[in-house]
Amino acid sequence: MTVFDLPAVRALIDAALAEDIGRGDLTTQLTVPSELRATAAIVAKQDGVLAGAPLVDRIVAAVGACDAVITHHASDGAAFAAGARLISIEGGAADLLVAERTALNFVQHLCGVATLTRRFVDAVAGTRARVVDTRKTTPGLRALEKYAVRASGGYNHRLGLDDGILIKDNHILAAGGVAAAVTAARRGAPHTTRVQIECASLAQVDEALAAGADAILLDNMSVEQLAAAVRRIAGRAVVEASGGVTLATIRDIAQTGVDLISVGALTHSAPAIDLSMKIQLRVGRAPRGTA
Amino acid sequence: MTVFDLPAVRALIDAALAEDIGRGDLTTQLTVPSELRATAAIVAKQDGVLAGAPLVDRIVAAVGACDAVITHHASDGAAFAAGARLISIEGGAADLLVAERTALNFVQHLCGVATLTRRFVDAVAGTRARVVDTRKTTPGLRALEKYAVRASGGYNHRLGLDDGILIKDNHILAAGGVAAAVTAARRGAPHTTRVQIECASLAQVDEALAAGADAILLDNMSVEQLAAAVRRIAGRAVVEASGGVTLATIRDIAQTGVDLISVGALTHSAPAIDLSMKIQLRVGRAPRGTA
Amino acid sequence: MTVFDLPAVRALIDAALAEDIGRGDLTTQLTVPSELRATAAIVAKQDGVLAGAPLVDRIVAAVGACDAVITHHASDGAAFAAGARLISIEGGAADLLVAERTALNFVQHLCGVATLTRRFVDAVAGTRARVVDTRKTTPGLRALEKYAVRASGGYNHRLGLDDGILIKDNHILAAGGVAAAVTAARRGAPHTTRVQIECASLAQVDEALAAGADAILLDNMSVEQLAAAVRRIAGRAVVEASGGVTLATIRDIAQTGVDLISVGALTHSAPAIDLSMKIQLRVGRAPRGTA
Amino acid sequence: MTVFDLPAVRALIDAALAEDIGRGDLTTQLTVPSELRATAAIVAKQDGVLAGAPLVDRIVAAVGACDAVITHHASDGAAFAAGARLISIEGGAADLLVAERTALNFVQHLCGVATLTRRFVDAVAGTRARVVDTRKTTPGLRALEKYAVRASGGYNHRLGLDDGILIKDNHILAAGGVAAAVTAARRGAPHTTRVQIECASLAQVDEALAAGADAILLDNMSVEQLAAAVRRIAGRAVVEASGGVTLATIRDIAQTGVDLISVGALTHSAPAIDLSMKIQLRVGRAPRGTA
Amino acid sequence: MTVFDLPAVRALIDAALAEDIGRGDLTTQLTVPSELRATAAIVAKQDGVLAGAPLVDRIVAAVGACDAVITHHASDGAAFAAGARLISIEGGAADLLVAERTALNFVQHLCGVATLTRRFVDAVAGTRARVVDTRKTTPGLRALEKYAVRASGGYNHRLGLDDGILIKDNHILAAGGVAAAVTAARRGAPHTTRVQIECASLAQVDEALAAGADAILLDNMSVEQLAAAVRRIAGRAVVEASGGVTLATIRDIAQTGVDLISVGALTHSAPAIDLSMKIQLRVGRAPRGTA
Amino acid sequence: MTVFDLPAVRALIDAALAEDIGRGDLTTQLTVPSELRATAAIVAKQDGVLAGAPLVDRIVAAVGACDAVITHHASDGAAFAAGARLISIEGGAADLLVAERTALNFVQHLCGVATLTRRFVDAVAGTRARVVDTRKTTPGLRALEKYAVRASGGYNHRLGLDDGILIKDNHILAAGGVAAAVTAARRGAPHTTRVQIECASLAQVDEALAAGADAILLDNMSVEQLAAAVRRIAGRAVVEASGGVTLATIRDIAQTGVDLISVGALTHSAPAIDLSMKIQLRVGRAPRGTA
Repeated sequence: MTVFDLPAVRALIDAALAEDIGRGDLTTQLTVPSELRATAAIVAKQDGVLAGAPLVDRIVAAVGACDAVITHHASDGAAFAAGARLISIEGGAADLLVAERTALNFVQHLCGVATLTRRFVDAVAGTRARVVDTRKTTPGLRALEKYAVRASGGYNHRLGLDDGILIKDNHILAAGGVAAAVTAARRGAPHTTRVQIECASLAQVDEALAAGADAILLDNMSVEQLAAAVRRIAGRAVVEASGGVTLATIRDIAQTGVDLISVGALTHSAPAIDLSMKIQLRVGRAPRGTA
Repeated sequence: MTVFDLPAVRALIDAALAEDIGRGDLTTQLTVPSELRATAAIVAKQDGVLAGAPLVDRIVAAVGACDAVITHHASDGAAFAAGARLISIEGGAADLLVAERTALNFVQHLCGVATLTRRFVDAVAGTRARVVDTRKTTPGLRALEKYAVRASGGYNHRLGLDDGILIKDNHILAAGGVAAAVTAARRGAPHTTRVQIECASLAQVDEALAAGADAILLDNMSVEQLAAAVRRIAGRAVVEASGGVTLATIRDIAQTGVDLISVGALTHSAPAIDLSMKIQLRVGRAPRGTA
Repeated sequence: MTVFDLPAVRALIDAALAEDIGRGDLTTQLTVPSELRATAAIVAKQDGVLAGAPLVDRIVAAVGACDAVITHHASDGAAFAAGARLISIEGGAADLLVAERTALNFVQHLCGVATLTRRFVDAVAGTRARVVDTRKTTPGLRALEKYAVRASGGYNHRLGLDDGILIKDNHILAAGGVAAAVTAARRGAPHTTRVQIECASLAQVDEALAAGADAILLDNMSVEQLAAAVRRIAGRAVVEASGGVTLATIRDIAQTGVDLISVGALTHSAPAIDLSMKIQLRVGRAPRGTA
Repeated sequence: MTVFDLPAVRALIDAALAEDIGRGDLTTQLTVPSELRATAAIVAKQDGVLAGAPLVDRIVAAVGACDAVITHHASDGAAFAAGARLISIEGGAADLLVAERTALNFVQHLCGVATLTRRFVDAVAGTRARVVDTRKTTPGLRALEKYAVRASGGYNHRLGLDDGILIKDNHILAAGGVAAAVTAARRGAPHTTRVQIECASLAQVDEALAAGADAILLDNMSVEQLAAAVRRIAGRAVVEASGGVTLATIRDIAQTGVDLISVGALTHSAPAIDLSMKIQLRVGRAPRGTA
Repeated sequence: MTVFDLPAVRALIDAALAEDIGRGDLTTQLTVPSELRATAAIVAKQDGVLAGAPLVDRIVAAVGACDAVITHHASDGAAFAAGARLISIEGGAADLLVAERTALNFVQHLCGVATLTRRFVDAVAGTRARVVDTRKTTPGLRALEKYAVRASGGYNHRLGLDDGILIKDNHILAAGGVAAAVTAARRGAPHTTRVQIECASLAQVDEALAAGADAILLDNMSVEQLAAAVRRIAGRAVVEASGGVTLATIRDIAQTGVDLISVGALTHSAPAIDLSMKIQLRVGRAPRGTA
Repeated sequence: MTVFDLPAVRALIDAALAEDIGRGDLTTQLTVPSELRATAAIVAKQDGVLAGAPLVDRIVAAVGACDAVITHHASDGAAFAAGARLISIEGGAADLLVAERTALNFVQHLCGVATLTRRFVDAVAGTRARVVDTRKTTPGLRALEKYAVRASGGYNHRLGLDDGILIKDNHILAAGGVAAAVTAARRGAPHTTRVQIECASLAQVDEALAAGADAILLDNMSVEQLAAAVRRIAGRAVVEASGGVTLATIRDIAQTGVDLISVGALTHSAPAIDLSMKIQLRVGRAPRGTA
């Protein structure tokens, strides 16, 4: 069961088609003969990294084009150059025109995430640091965006509030301090979950380690501060750096020796990759046995 | 009934909360006493234009914080500067922490759309051209993104395939030519809908006008070509320019005299505006009469 | 993607089956052996026009009769006489009995709409007037009822409040007059949408035309008033007549030269066409390869 | 918990609003100031019987008009004359305009069912016969249509396939005869359910009674045949007459002494009752404490 | 259409998979190669009665294992011994591991209900009494649990509040006495429904019979009281005994001559039957033609 | 946001009400005057531990009894004795009768889970072992059942397949051995998640520890084997014992020094706790201001 078949993703596909198609494609109904067949090619108009290609199959099926034949020329995670043909589809012309925009909207967005992620991943090559995403995702698209991160070489942080523990400043205040927060979390957490805590100073790092924290989040620290913290922690906990990380700064951060660098922009600010669907019409008929 | 109350938007809010909260906020459950109250402020960390603020009320209510008191310090469409406090919320600390990420994810995304739109709108000030969006939207977020465009001074193109007619190259081929396509569309379209057609040459423009097209889409034309087309059309149809429009090029395009300039980037590539929620905890109790 | 595959229509099919079947067909479970096969014929018991036949395939599939073989003897829009066999189905007897009532309820209702529409369409034959429907539809069935209107020769007015502009008396009052309302609508409307306004007098017609209205709705006017308005408008706008139109009055209205005549009764008061499903049982087995 | 609060009915209200409002009421957004208040009156334009009035409250709330004040001037089941004011609503003008059509579509349809039912009920006054509905309902509206039948003096037959046993000709054939079918049904049915069977002859009636049938359905019999059957049954089972019953024939049928007369037309062919919503705009403000 | 295809059951399957799989099976994704095939066997670890086996097909399909081949070695209702292989499945290893727990959770629960029911049914063998279930079911699982009761020889009482009439003590008080309650129910009930009433004394039984009750419920009576009531009723109504019935007491109750004995424990307290899924991995490939 | 407000739980409440109420409570409609008020008490008929009480508020609200006043006499997790009044409700009599069964079905089931859990928890008092649940839950009820475990002193294992890593025998085989599986899991897992692995021998334990496993699951081992494994692991990993644990065996297991003992029976075989709702009718009226 892939991410593309999760109930939430299937519901999103339905919602995206519903918002685009509404009560039906007025233009296509009035101008495209229903028996017309077509060959469509999804083509890249700029360089990028592929993600989300399997969604095309599901979207084409969802518009009722059960007899369409889809060929994938590249797999998710593959880099492509401008001009590359990524996917070919043969099917009813009207169906392809109805599916076109929704399919492109999904794939261009996920390719955007994958392409940006790959750039960050490449920037830390050779260091011990992993690029990880955050919960700063586009509403409704988290599972897909986090998949695109994984497909392009990044790693996932928590998927949601329920699959990990990350104690932040407000939790620390509410719990009565770093030690109290870590202790409460360790006592109540499922044994399958590690306890991570955000620390604003080396003093807090010491307190967190003493209380048994498994991972430390260092937010908005300078490279020097990060390096000092990594030395202090000395392998006793996983170390994550976060806060305004850019392609210009990530390599320096990685070289401090942190284990993880989280980058919100991967999922909240990746520009779409420009894709287009070229359609070639041809008179013909559906393959035998289709309806 | 605002856009925020449309069934599809309410469903998206639910989906966004579900993907973030999952089976519950493990960290908050373990570290934040349930009776703790808090005051939260959504604060801008960079300049921008506000959009989507009313979603915060709905998200806070959706996590069960019925007794929260929300104060809006600015309205959608207003420009704000870095440091501005946009929204204040008083409520249960645990509720606010659960709602935080989902609320910010929505508003930072829509502010991104509004901020980019405003820059394009400002760039054509004084010309007759309107900045319009496209159907290149983030899957599931079309209604909200198109709202953000409107809120910041842009205009909407079609909301979907069912509320307007836009005959593109493939429709023309399928219908047997520009004249045939326009005629078929005019014959079958509801009388409330105009017929727009994409033209690749002045010859096609002539044919479209002769067949009664109400609007002409000129895709990827040079400024010179656009100007020539505007002269040829001479007010007989609405003229829209599209294709790779940037902040660097839009003013020249606007000065050709086109009526509309559509910009896909407004909705598919606007970077998020950085917002944060500052939370101040305080011991206290809910207002009387709440549960 | 046909109207029958729209998400809202699929949901309606599910709801209709759910309300009829509930927790299961008690009678069939207790009296019909599960291996029994049958041939069913949907037969007309009165003259009419067919609409909605493809729903039968979807309903039969929805009750789980994946091995059923369905033959359509007529297409939507075709006229039929009492006694005509419209659809044949071979499948499991129990499945057919479970699907029977829901299938007939859909088709008899849509044939009712199509049959009444055809009578109105025939009544204006030879005039320039089109018969159009309204938003006075049965709750939940709008897409299907509007499809039945189209299938039988009628035309659709707006599908909903979002795909066209129709300014009525209350909007005029709220906006501060005919000119103000038209101007506001033209300024804010997507360029794909025409602006229609209801006028109660020739003075209002003049004002609407001056403000740039694309279409005029004349409600409850006499034939003489309509003729005068048509002369005054003189092709400068689409003219629609509405209000209490009957088969007895529509031809006179059409002969005034109006472009459109809207008839609410098409969708809110069409009596169902009497159909029955004749079932012939036979001992047998499912075709090979089915489950 | 009334019928109006059943999950299926709430879902239908949502679906009906969704199909009408779509992405929003374009006309109202562009012409009606958001602060404008209004008083609306739902008024009858012809005589009828009221049903479905409580739906108006739910629809007005569903469009977000939480501060609307609704006054009902008549209860479901009450007869009204043309011109009667049935319901008054004070609220935001834009909200009322958005809710208007959906509210009227529901109530005009259910009043149609109630008005026709009342005419049939009145036609059998003084006899022992009850007028009952059938499963020939409009898809998705069964619960509401059956409620309208009850509200106007009719009675309900089975609500669905799961809350009663009615053995028809095909079940008899499948089970191997009248006696076998009745016996199988009695053996397997919940003890709370009676067993009814359709009989085509007095011989079948005898066989059914001998096997223990609780009720007999006599379909498409002449008045003479019905009278003979009633005499033969002599109170040993409930007797129902069905088949092409009209206002012209029902009284004669009732006078044969049958217990029940089922009329499909109540729910599949009742013309809508003409209602309108008169709206009076007024400048003002929402009552204190609303949002 | 079987119980397993009812919309509510399909929704429950989806919900059960969603709650188990969440955003995906982390362990399987990281450790199981996607091309690995497997053969799984669902095996009983204790004696029992089978129920719910067809759910396995639906769950395996729902996780996307469309190419899986499932063989059932026993039918619902069959008794099995510890060690018995009940179902075999060939398919993708990852798919089977994802489906395993949800499939077992359903079947172990329904086998629990069926096994306990069979013990009660066996305990009354040779008497006239039927074992019936109650509305004391696990929330969301009623249709399946009631199916398991039927599959193992029990009978169903009402499926819900809408498919039968059962007047209890509070209804009697509200209606103003036994006679008033029975009369009101008989007058308003559909003719397909019998009227059952709970009686606490022989005096109430007399009153109920006089008012025309079809069935009498005797709650928490001693065997002597039951026997006396059976004699008094003397076949004039169906007699049901209920209240704290156990395997130790049911035979004595049955021998009083009651028609029905209802046992809440069948559905609210049946321990699960221990089943396991044994999986054998094998390198291989999917059958031809699968995707 | 409590577990009772999670979308999946709200959907389950709706489903449970829908399956019980269907198209409406026939008995109550016919026998209970709509204006009748009542006071209800949920009373324990046997000793137990409370869980799920807040669901009653949601169910009562869901049937439309918005004016009901609910008083909780005990909190979830509290032990109660037979005869204890747990919850009091004042509201409309018909509403309470409609809500009764669904409310009791939820609470009696969750009290069953809590009561059984408490017995296991008490049995290990004084040892270091925690009682944990499993994924062997009732389909659709996992979030609630796991809540009941927590409320009564138990701890949760994984909530689903996505919030923890647990490598079992088949995963080991598929991955190519214990070391390979642990390594693959550690490499790909989010850093917030620990890696647990099932070991069948001390040799596997050694291999798992060497590869960096965080937790070891020992399934179906004897007390002696467990003790040996605990000594070997010596605090280097969390140790969990599972497999056929009963109240008779759990203390011996706990005394081996394991950290966790998982018990499937907590959620799959807990008998319901017998509760009843006593209703006292009274003539009256709703509190002012309700509708």
